[in-house]
Amino acid sequence: MRRRNLSRVMHAVAAQGTLSRASVASRIGLTRAAVSTLVDELIRAGLLEELGPERPGRVGRPGSALAVSAQGPAGIGADVGVDHLAVCAVDLRGDVRARAVRRVDNRGRAPQPVLADLASLVREVIRTAEQEGLRPAGLAVAVPGLVARDTRTVVRAPNLDWHDTDIGALLPTELPLSVDNEANFGALAELWLGATAPADFLHVSAEIGIGAALVVEGRLLRGSRGFAGELGHVPVWPEGPTCACGGRGCLEQYAGEEALLRAAGLASGADRMEALAERAHTGDMKARAALRDAGAALGIALTGAVNLLDPRAVVLGGALSRLAPWLLPSLEGELGRRTTGPGCEVVVSGVGSDGPLLGAAHAVVRAVLDDPVGVA
Amino acid sequence: MRRRNLSRVMHAVAAQGTLSRASVASRIGLTRAAVSTLVDELIRAGLLEELGPERPGRVGRPGSALAVSAQGPAGIGADVGVDHLAVCAVDLRGDVRARAVRRVDNRGRAPQPVLADLASLVREVIRTAEQEGLRPAGLAVAVPGLVARDTRTVVRAPNLDWHDTDIGALLPTELPLSVDNEANFGALAELWLGATAPADFLHVSAEIGIGAALVVEGRLLRGSRGFAGELGHVPVWPEGPTCACGGRGCLEQYAGEEALLRAAGLASGADRMEALAERAHTGDMKARAALRDAGAALGIALTGAVNLLDPRAVVLGGALSRLAPWLLPSLEGELGRRTTGPGCEVVVSGVGSDGPLLGAAHAVVRAVLDDPVGVA
Repeated sequence: MRRRNLSRVMHAVAAQGTLSRASVASRIGLTRAAVSTLVDELIRAGLLEELGPERPGRVGRPGSALAVSAQGPAGIGADVGVDHLAVCAVDLRGDVRARAVRRVDNRGRAPQPVLADLASLVREVIRTAEQEGLRPAGLAVAVPGLVARDTRTVVRAPNLDWHDTDIGALLPTELPLSVDNEANFGALAELWLGATAPADFLHVSAEIGIGAALVVEGRLLRGSRGFAGELGHVPVWPEGPTCACGGRGCLEQYAGEEALLRAAGLASGADRMEALAERAHTGDMKARAALRDAGAALGIALTGAVNLLDPRAVVLGGALSRLAPWLLPSLEGELGRRTTGPGCEVVVSGVGSDGPLLGAAHAVVRAVLDDPVGVA
Repeated sequence: MRRRNLSRVMHAVAAQGTLSRASVASRIGLTRAAVSTLVDELIRAGLLEELGPERPGRVGRPGSALAVSAQGPAGIGADVGVDHLAVCAVDLRGDVRARAVRRVDNRGRAPQPVLADLASLVREVIRTAEQEGLRPAGLAVAVPGLVARDTRTVVRAPNLDWHDTDIGALLPTELPLSVDNEANFGALAELWLGATAPADFLHVSAEIGIGAALVVEGRLLRGSRGFAGELGHVPVWPEGPTCACGGRGCLEQYAGEEALLRAAGLASGADRMEALAERAHTGDMKARAALRDAGAALGIALTGAVNLLDPRAVVLGGALSRLAPWLLPSLEGELGRRTTGPGCEVVVSGVGSDGPLLGAAHAVVRAVLDDPVGVA
């Protein structure tokens, strides 16, 4: 009960930015005395800080404004991309306090060197965070593949060509470690940080592959083994090209990065999606046709998903958010023509390509807010 | 709290068939005195009955065995099919006590006469149930279409050609009325009555159309507006035949009843799926080819669903359970070849075509067990 009340105090303050003890008490329905005891404990643990007396002119005894500590625990998020590695530190207030990115083509690289590179970025970010007075509370890693979270193992990441990769064994870290699919972290970032996301939505993101995650009543639907959301392997044209997954005509064969770049006449490589967006922006017909066709394929695959799941909205995240202007007309055209029900709004994420990275770091931060004494 | 404890007593006895007061007390963790008070109230309300002293030879004072009343409230379930109307009464023990079925082609019939026919079957079943000493506690109606449950309105049932049909206004009944999609009730029947259903499964059923329902951790995933599960309108061949839903190449165009009968060279009409099963059973090549092709289309659509949802199992229910022997080889072939993850078991429902009807009646029964005082 005390644990739960400590968490309620943390969440109340975190949600508001700053709050007096009296306001915390009225928000969570405890006496001011009880709240003061909890607050004192959280201040001693370095999770809350007192900002000094509130500005004068208010009625009653001046209260001291509380804020979530900007010097306390931090969440370390990491993103293993096919063409990049990224790490960041987010404080309890939700601010990014340190960040390191390395562009690198990870396709065909063995897990060991990739994770050694990642570990060095993690050390770099932790160093910066500690210089800022932060204490890393955990490390969460986003990977583009099917993840068994309980064993922190990447069961299968076709675009990295990793199989049964035990991240816990290969990534040297003293921090509590969690691993999840990048599309899941991207959807959580949308849920936690997105300006407009409803509590029920299908989040679609793309890097090299295409992933999706369904949020129902504010909770991620993970599937029975944690493998839900493989939108990229929904068949679009059943007799289409063979896919790395073993299937044929999967969405990735039409709207994945490789297919898109090939159709647009661009070589593959790092930052090519930026180049594609640039070409489309300048009116390149081949780039625009490639994006139009990819949008149509996305629309067909999403028709199936919307008919099955009835989400309140489809949110385009990751690289898709940058490409949305040229994907949306054909995507919405197919979806509108084909869906049975009263349709489904398609919105573009404001979180963008950083979703998986931010979602991972915020997952650690939220774990601290949910159980502050576990960390304190 | 008292309400909740009354429900816990009912569920404990219902789950075991018969149970002594002492066993109820130990199962739900209340004192024997508290349980006796609750039990007495439930007996007075006609929801529990005392079967007399338990057989001798047991240690201690002989207890009286309790059972859920076979004379108490009953759930009335109704199924509006495209080619039939069916109504049944199920008692609190889960036994079907009355039943009436009328074969009738409801395609193109206006809602009014269909629901008038249904009301007469409901009256017939209620009469029989009352003669058996039962008290109907509510009526639940399964319909093959999108249902807005809060307004008890069929938003759209393409195979009946109903739109915005207010069942509450058109079905004369004094009973508390609820309305839901037949695939939802079918999946709930599988969850509640099926021998082998896990807590996470995708239930696929067919009558004229093809519906599905996803059960996650023992709960039905209804979608944001209650329209989830439209597997029949997942695109299989995007440039295929135009569908009643407005889409093209939907699963129903390949595995729906009309498509199946046409491919098998059978005229449409009531009981034609039985005729198709019979032909396949006797080795008719055209019937078998039709079912093989339908199974392949189902396998392609289910590949998308399994990749998105990662259910523990796919359960074939309704008319599909009878046709499973000829659908399964091609269905499992496509699913096995195409799915990304570690695959998904396909099982055949033991509940069969009665699923929606039984699910509807049991939904009323479970509502009584969940809130016995609301009825008593």
